[in-house]
Amino acid sequence: CGYKGKIFPINPGAEEILSLRCYHSVLDVRENIDLAIIAIPAGSVLQVAEECGKKGVKAIIVISAGFKETGREGAILEKQLVDIASRYDMRTQGPNCLGVIDTSTPLNLSFAVTMPKAGKIGFISQSGALGTAVLDWVIKERIGFSSFVSLGNKADLDEIDFMEAMGGDDEIGVILLYLESIEKGQKFVEKAREVAKRKPVIVLKGGTSSAGAKAAGSHTGALVGSFIAYQTAFRKVGILLAESVEELFNYAVSFTEQPLPEGEGIAIITNAGGPGILATDLCEKLGVKLAIFSRVTHQELISKLPPAASTGNPIDVLGDAKADRYRFALERALGDEGVKAVIVLLTPQAMTESLATAQSIVEMSRSAKGKPILTVFMGGSSV
Amino acid sequence: CGYKGKIFPINPGAEEILSLRCYHSVLDVRENIDLAIIAIPAGSVLQVAEECGKKGVKAIIVISAGFKETGREGAILEKQLVDIASRYDMRTQGPNCLGVIDTSTPLNLSFAVTMPKAGKIGFISQSGALGTAVLDWVIKERIGFSSFVSLGNKADLDEIDFMEAMGGDDEIGVILLYLESIEKGQKFVEKAREVAKRKPVIVLKGGTSSAGAKAAGSHTGALVGSFIAYQTAFRKVGILLAESVEELFNYAVSFTEQPLPEGEGIAIITNAGGPGILATDLCEKLGVKLAIFSRVTHQELISKLPPAASTGNPIDVLGDAKADRYRFALERALGDEGVKAVIVLLTPQAMTESLATAQSIVEMSRSAKGKPILTVFMGGSSV
Repeated sequence: CGYKGKIFPINPGAEEILSLRCYHSVLDVRENIDLAIIAIPAGSVLQVAEECGKKGVKAIIVISAGFKETGREGAILEKQLVDIASRYDMRTQGPNCLGVIDTSTPLNLSFAVTMPKAGKIGFISQSGALGTAVLDWVIKERIGFSSFVSLGNKADLDEIDFMEAMGGDDEIGVILLYLESIEKGQKFVEKAREVAKRKPVIVLKGGTSSAGAKAAGSHTGALVGSFIAYQTAFRKVGILLAESVEELFNYAVSFTEQPLPEGEGIAIITNAGGPGILATDLCEKLGVKLAIFSRVTHQELISKLPPAASTGNPIDVLGDAKADRYRFALERALGDEGVKAVIVLLTPQAMTESLATAQSIVEMSRSAKGKPILTVFMGGSSV
Repeated sequence: CGYKGKIFPINPGAEEILSLRCYHSVLDVRENIDLAIIAIPAGSVLQVAEECGKKGVKAIIVISAGFKETGREGAILEKQLVDIASRYDMRTQGPNCLGVIDTSTPLNLSFAVTMPKAGKIGFISQSGALGTAVLDWVIKERIGFSSFVSLGNKADLDEIDFMEAMGGDDEIGVILLYLESIEKGQKFVEKAREVAKRKPVIVLKGGTSSAGAKAAGSHTGALVGSFIAYQTAFRKVGILLAESVEELFNYAVSFTEQPLPEGEGIAIITNAGGPGILATDLCEKLGVKLAIFSRVTHQELISKLPPAASTGNPIDVLGDAKADRYRFALERALGDEGVKAVIVLLTPQAMTESLATAQSIVEMSRSAKGKPILTVFMGGSSV
């Protein structure tokens, strides 16, 4: 992935791995080691962790599974791992995790073969497999990532540690978390309150139903808290809750590619009544306030748009609107002080200029004075 | 679009349209006319409707806008149109609509330039523009349509008439409705109860919020009923409610490409804990019951799957599952009497065989004994 630092493969059965000299033990390496990645059968992890401790390694990432998630014996093994690490003052990520990716170092210590594009999203996942699926998807969709962290069993480092670190990382503009269990609820909420003041924090919580919680319980061996309690606490401290992976990334992409609105009041521009109504319904459902236009804006809309157009909010520029009419309505909406964000809806009608309208919106967005513009171009090949 | 019947273009200003002889008035045509499409300025519609009546036309579709949706004068014009039509015993679709498509006739009396692929979906839309966007999208996605109807102002024929017609049409396997207003609530619910016994009826209701209702009011000039009341009535008679256009078509595609489950009890198969939990959460949220496996099924899963696998429901076949392990789990799930439907989730892990797993699922679906199989392959280029 282009990592600039030194890498020391350790394997007692090999002399060379990927053209790098291979060591039989971490103790054979002469240089200092910052981080060790352990991906060996669970039974040997304790011995290797002990060696890492002796060597003065600062942190370990334990990919290996076979710990708390497998039952009582695994839980004992995990406890022993934590004891060793804390004795040597090593921090531990995992076990039973998929590692970490950082596109700015760059560093890819994960199962993902290719790196995602560099970007502003930091993603913390308690499910490694969900993480893999998401990485695969963002690479295809060319969505920019800054960091990806797979938490695994959270024997030591947990979502609070990584959220805090991402909160202080200027490369990261938005923090996404997929969580199944939150053990230190109070501390999580307090830390999230601090971080959410600086950048958006969005949580997708798995195990919110009783059946899902049961599945989560058998999966991570952790208790799952009451979702309603989480919801209330999250809302209070300004955490956004996503209801699906799709929603999580819709939020993330909107937040990283657009400025945050500076207040309440959204304007909707549409060339079709139905989609305008559906968008209005959704805004009300989500508690997003529709802007009330100033008298000046309203007058200008009335005087320049055709008589049949709706000049309230949503603004219906009508089915025969070409790019110039969209441009005019968008300019008026952005110029209104009460409007803090704009949604532009387009459906393909006979006269619609999809491409020219999109270009107008892109041009207008440059002088949008920090107001985000969201677009929904409905349809297939015509848009 | 390949229509086999006769077409008579009417336009006082032309002698020929698309190589067809053009008539100055419908009264100049000698043959009988079943259906007239009127797409002229609103001011001339009444005269043409009168002529159609005299000619003995059985039904008219009024594309023209400029009626009830524009205000009081338009409403008067619309009333006059209805009076003329009823005097001559003509049925009217519209005004202010986008026409109709029927892929089996075939007949395309709409703004859509290309026809959608023939299929089992019947779609009734109170928003013409939403209809256009949907048509554009289904054509690109190659989703099969049987009929598309744009209701417009519903001066005469309304959603009840078309739902009834589609209910009796064997070409149509699922009926979708996008509605903003339902004037005859009681009658709609009664008719839907009958139709929903024969095939799924799915409604996306616009104007469910007060702001959305206001937007709908100014758009179609119709009052919008209380959504909560609709919800309750719909649930009672077996109508499914979609919350977005996407959901409407997800339902439609599932219903037309898969058998309907014959009872409650769904099995989830996954190679990743997180997505399994999210799916379980969603099932509980939507009131879908998870199947409880029989002792035999459970024993077989335990004896053949690796020890770390979850053999409850969801079945976690683990991250290293190849196609054969998916196939085994799917076979066991389908073989269980308590399982009426299966969801297969896949995330791309190092060992995952996406294509071979998909092929296994397709093969298994042939012997699925009428049990629907839904798949979610998460990720990007690897799946």
